Amino acid sequence: MWGRTDLIDESEEMVKHRTESQKAKLDNSEGIKFDEGRNGAVLITSIEVNEEGEKQIGKKQGKYITLTDLTLSPHDEKSFENIARTFIDHLRDMHKEFSLTDESKILIIGLGNATVTPDAIGPKAIEYLQNSSLTNNEKVKVVMYAPGVTGQTGFETSDFVSAISEAFKPDLILVMDALAARNSERLCKTIQITNTGIHPGSGVGNQRKEISKEVYGVPVTAIGVPMVVDGPVLYADAVEQVIHHVAARVEEKGKPSSALSVTPMVSNKTNIDKKVLEPIFGEWVGWSTEEKRQLFEEVFVGKNPSLFVTPKETDLWVEQYAYMLSTGIETWITSK
Amino acid sequence: MWGRTDLIDESEEMVKHRTESQKAKLDNSEGIKFDEGRNGAVLITSIEVNEEGEKQIGKKQGKYITLTDLTLSPHDEKSFENIARTFIDHLRDMHKEFSLTDESKILIIGLGNATVTPDAIGPKAIEYLQNSSLTNNEKVKVVMYAPGVTGQTGFETSDFVSAISEAFKPDLILVMDALAARNSERLCKTIQITNTGIHPGSGVGNQRKEISKEVYGVPVTAIGVPMVVDGPVLYADAVEQVIHHVAARVEEKGKPSSALSVTPMVSNKTNIDKKVLEPIFGEWVGWSTEEKRQLFEEVFVGKNPSLFVTPKETDLWVEQYAYMLSTGIETWITSK
Amino acid sequence: MWGRTDLIDESEEMVKHRTESQKAKLDNSEGIKFDEGRNGAVLITSIEVNEEGEKQIGKKQGKYITLTDLTLSPHDEKSFENIARTFIDHLRDMHKEFSLTDESKILIIGLGNATVTPDAIGPKAIEYLQNSSLTNNEKVKVVMYAPGVTGQTGFETSDFVSAISEAFKPDLILVMDALAARNSERLCKTIQITNTGIHPGSGVGNQRKEISKEVYGVPVTAIGVPMVVDGPVLYADAVEQVIHHVAARVEEKGKPSSALSVTPMVSNKTNIDKKVLEPIFGEWVGWSTEEKRQLFEEVFVGKNPSLFVTPKETDLWVEQYAYMLSTGIETWITSK
Amino acid sequence: MWGRTDLIDESEEMVKHRTESQKAKLDNSEGIKFDEGRNGAVLITSIEVNEEGEKQIGKKQGKYITLTDLTLSPHDEKSFENIARTFIDHLRDMHKEFSLTDESKILIIGLGNATVTPDAIGPKAIEYLQNSSLTNNEKVKVVMYAPGVTGQTGFETSDFVSAISEAFKPDLILVMDALAARNSERLCKTIQITNTGIHPGSGVGNQRKEISKEVYGVPVTAIGVPMVVDGPVLYADAVEQVIHHVAARVEEKGKPSSALSVTPMVSNKTNIDKKVLEPIFGEWVGWSTEEKRQLFEEVFVGKNPSLFVTPKETDLWVEQYAYMLSTGIETWITSK
Repeated sequence: MWGRTDLIDESEEMVKHRTESQKAKLDNSEGIKFDEGRNGAVLITSIEVNEEGEKQIGKKQGKYITLTDLTLSPHDEKSFENIARTFIDHLRDMHKEFSLTDESKILIIGLGNATVTPDAIGPKAIEYLQNSSLTNNEKVKVVMYAPGVTGQTGFETSDFVSAISEAFKPDLILVMDALAARNSERLCKTIQITNTGIHPGSGVGNQRKEISKEVYGVPVTAIGVPMVVDGPVLYADAVEQVIHHVAARVEEKGKPSSALSVTPMVSNKTNIDKKVLEPIFGEWVGWSTEEKRQLFEEVFVGKNPSLFVTPKETDLWVEQYAYMLSTGIETWITSK
Repeated sequence: MWGRTDLIDESEEMVKHRTESQKAKLDNSEGIKFDEGRNGAVLITSIEVNEEGEKQIGKKQGKYITLTDLTLSPHDEKSFENIARTFIDHLRDMHKEFSLTDESKILIIGLGNATVTPDAIGPKAIEYLQNSSLTNNEKVKVVMYAPGVTGQTGFETSDFVSAISEAFKPDLILVMDALAARNSERLCKTIQITNTGIHPGSGVGNQRKEISKEVYGVPVTAIGVPMVVDGPVLYADAVEQVIHHVAARVEEKGKPSSALSVTPMVSNKTNIDKKVLEPIFGEWVGWSTEEKRQLFEEVFVGKNPSLFVTPKETDLWVEQYAYMLSTGIETWITSK
Repeated sequence: MWGRTDLIDESEEMVKHRTESQKAKLDNSEGIKFDEGRNGAVLITSIEVNEEGEKQIGKKQGKYITLTDLTLSPHDEKSFENIARTFIDHLRDMHKEFSLTDESKILIIGLGNATVTPDAIGPKAIEYLQNSSLTNNEKVKVVMYAPGVTGQTGFETSDFVSAISEAFKPDLILVMDALAARNSERLCKTIQITNTGIHPGSGVGNQRKEISKEVYGVPVTAIGVPMVVDGPVLYADAVEQVIHHVAARVEEKGKPSSALSVTPMVSNKTNIDKKVLEPIFGEWVGWSTEEKRQLFEEVFVGKNPSLFVTPKETDLWVEQYAYMLSTGIETWITSK
Repeated sequence: MWGRTDLIDESEEMVKHRTESQKAKLDNSEGIKFDEGRNGAVLITSIEVNEEGEKQIGKKQGKYITLTDLTLSPHDEKSFENIARTFIDHLRDMHKEFSLTDESKILIIGLGNATVTPDAIGPKAIEYLQNSSLTNNEKVKVVMYAPGVTGQTGFETSDFVSAISEAFKPDLILVMDALAARNSERLCKTIQITNTGIHPGSGVGNQRKEISKEVYGVPVTAIGVPMVVDGPVLYADAVEQVIHHVAARVEEKGKPSSALSVTPMVSNKTNIDKKVLEPIFGEWVGWSTEEKRQLFEEVFVGKNPSLFVTPKETDLWVEQYAYMLSTGIETWITSK
């Protein structure tokens, strides 16, 4: 099941860096290479973190590509086709140093619990792939599994991948998984591709082993889509939005917002006039989202541990993404 | 799909009445007859509202029975068997004036969208019933349908029930549906049985026609289980809990809580020391949960309209309840 | 569930007529208008039966179109796209006197048992349609249901359609259903479109009411795909094939087969040299397939009543046809 | 997917041995130990084959237990409970030399294609087991997988089991699978338990590697239920039944059948009066079922390779068996 801080785009450091004033610094940083572009409605963020960058932002060195289309809807075939094309392009880009030959062997793993809807993207994508032209493929030898979750199978998922990997000896491992997001607006609207593997959130008790090149000796590309938001994250975010909503109404006549954010999906949350808002919301106004989240977490620890937030049409989203990821991977592999 | 204020137990008036100080009044009220009992871990609330009571609390006159077991878990077969037995007893009780004979005709309807997990209790229960001893039953003639939702079929669900009802001419209509709860602790832990039918929330835009005796001329018993919480309700509730959590720590040494609530599932939310809390949370401290909810609603209107909150193991809960309701109904009908 | 003699193409009379020598007669018949064509691999048979023809071949008067592609495979997207296009053309052709306007109301019914794989084409197609652009369609008002089978719901399916039809008052009813075939080669490889409605096989005990214009006063178009073969039909067919196989080997050197059949899917079964075969197979050689079938039926009556024969990949076939029929119907309705 | 000659009870040799006249011989044979008993409607056959027996009947040495209840129906809960109890008893019996301790490690594998209904018993049973008390079991360490079929995953199923087995190092491997039967009356009505593992039919082209103690060095217990009959087997059987049916009618007045078969499920097929039947069926009368099957196979080779025969309610049978096998295994493991 999903970890908690899966999207690099949402790491505290990256969010900070994305204000205009910080962007210059980021560009000059030697630890992180940051690039942004667009393909229609899809915003493409490409981040490369090296050893120094890993120390700076606490994210493992490697390459991270995120594709985000905030206008996406599960009923919108056109937009899905567009993000699908972008996905294939960046799959190709991510693996440009990996030359697919007639002898290539690829292991594709769909993580997650097939019986929990928002966690089923991986297993469903594998189901599609198992009925695709990749089965009995003449050119590339592909092996595909949806191992389920440790709690079901009794076997650590990472050990499963390891066992199959040792028997099959692939040249590349592709892992698909549902992720957790901090920002509910990102839910179901982002795909993250990274060559750093899968790193389940540390300190969540649920300390799974990572699935990565370091562990298996085989390159691992992880593809993830944020499908859930945890309660405390959501509550803190909601309070934040309420505060800014009220602030916006108070300052209605005020100056035009000068400090535009780099991307449309991170709202500008600086420059709140504390004096006006403190009577209403008290000291909370000055707390960071992270501090608010920690308070909510403290309150809810062990209370509703089993609640989560998903879009109303989760089933359709999962279906769309499973199909999209599977056809994207099929196209990339067969059109090498 | 679910309305918003489906559980009578959660109506503003009922919650107010449930403090010890108000209970006397409630008992003396001529509009509402209120009764409470237990069967093991199951709390049974029985409320009868007459014409006068309808004016008082804005809930339709009729009988409401709620069965609540806050300790329930989808893995706990024993507890499910206990609440199942209680459910059958109260199905029987609710229909004690309805004498089941060899000529009785019952129409059973499972409302909801089978492809949206938390909305699938009704359709899944119908699936179980269609494989039960009620098909081709010699004694009682039973007709069973899961009509889907209007947005799928193109036909108003209430008109569907009406059309089948006119053709089949049942003596009783049983309707099963997933409900929305205000209180996330109640999610999946309550069953409500009422002879007042199904009344989709008014003013939510989604103004469905009601399914009731008044509309069809046939007694309608509605059976519902709360499966989702709407965002604003949840956020307001979360802020409330944070405030009380902090209040509790501040007053730690304070007096024992004297004003015990009637039922364990409504936490005592009176007597907060505003002076201590206002610096931290501002005026919010003094707002009612409803006022907080309205502010969240204002902020989130049209923003994340499609988010909802469900338990992590929704799929298992839905399976358990669908099975439980179906076997309960089967047992009641065949053991008349 | 399927009747037994659903395909007009397989009726004894039609099969007889299809030998070259009989074709002239058929062409001159005033009761039956027969037309044949091709679209790529798809053989298109169009049969119009009038009152006189009904007496001749015992098939209800009306129009029957069958599309057959014996090369079809569930993995062959291209062929499915071709038969899909042909299907849309002939849907349009079948309804050319029915002018679709902005006020048109269409009721679409998917018959069959969703939980029995080969019977699930209708319900699955409805599922697709309920997620298509036909829901909330501005131009044409469409209502869609998969009512299940009488044995599940407790309600005669024909009465269901009647009840909804009376409430919705459609201008046209489209009914999709899985059919039974006599010839196992036709399984999953034929679509039949007819404006004569659904006529469950008479005399099979399972005497369902028909769904037709005569009964409802509304035009009914039935779309069917043969998915199963009954045991006795299959056994008789198998014996027939063994006899012809042996006959063919015996006569190997013999004359070229002169009496070519009109269509490739009915093998030429005349002119067997009885004298050579009777020692091996006895009098059976001279029996008609129908007589053989009756003997098998006599033996198996009540014995394995619940066996049926389906293709190994039924699940894939059902998926493909459900998708194909649903997109065909969607395209026809939205592109009027 | 299923092999063809999976049930030892149906091997040519065993069938021959089961006539009264042969039984004495079988009893005295030193290669085969044969035992029969009953538990209510369940016939229990226990066969032990040693090295010599392996040469005699061509079945691998080891122990085979078959439980057969010809009266079973998928709607009959009582009978399923009875065969379930018998199943648990014989699971225990089969493993009486295998002492389950707190350190025991068991690998449970459900073979088959989850998307092909009659092949889904294994995968569905695993699904049940993954939600059972065996997950996170304190006493016995259980690992469970449904690996799918080679054609889907791209990986030889036997290699999958081998890889997991090497990583997990179990003390016992339990494998569940759907089987093919020769006799359509046995379909869905027999469970075979054997410690000889899984041996896919040789010569069927589909030469899978076996899953057995010999291959992995770990005891393998295979549990199978016959779910399909291949066409040629079925046709030959049908012709056989027709011949005997006619023979029976011809000899109606004749002597009482003296050579009773040992078990009710193998009908007495000796002593047909050829002279009476040959005019009707020719030489066929004298052919063995196997010879008839070979002729059908010759005719149908490559023709309808993808047809199979299953009971009409396959879906219900699969559900019942998956549940029964899973609870049986759960009970055996947890009640050691």
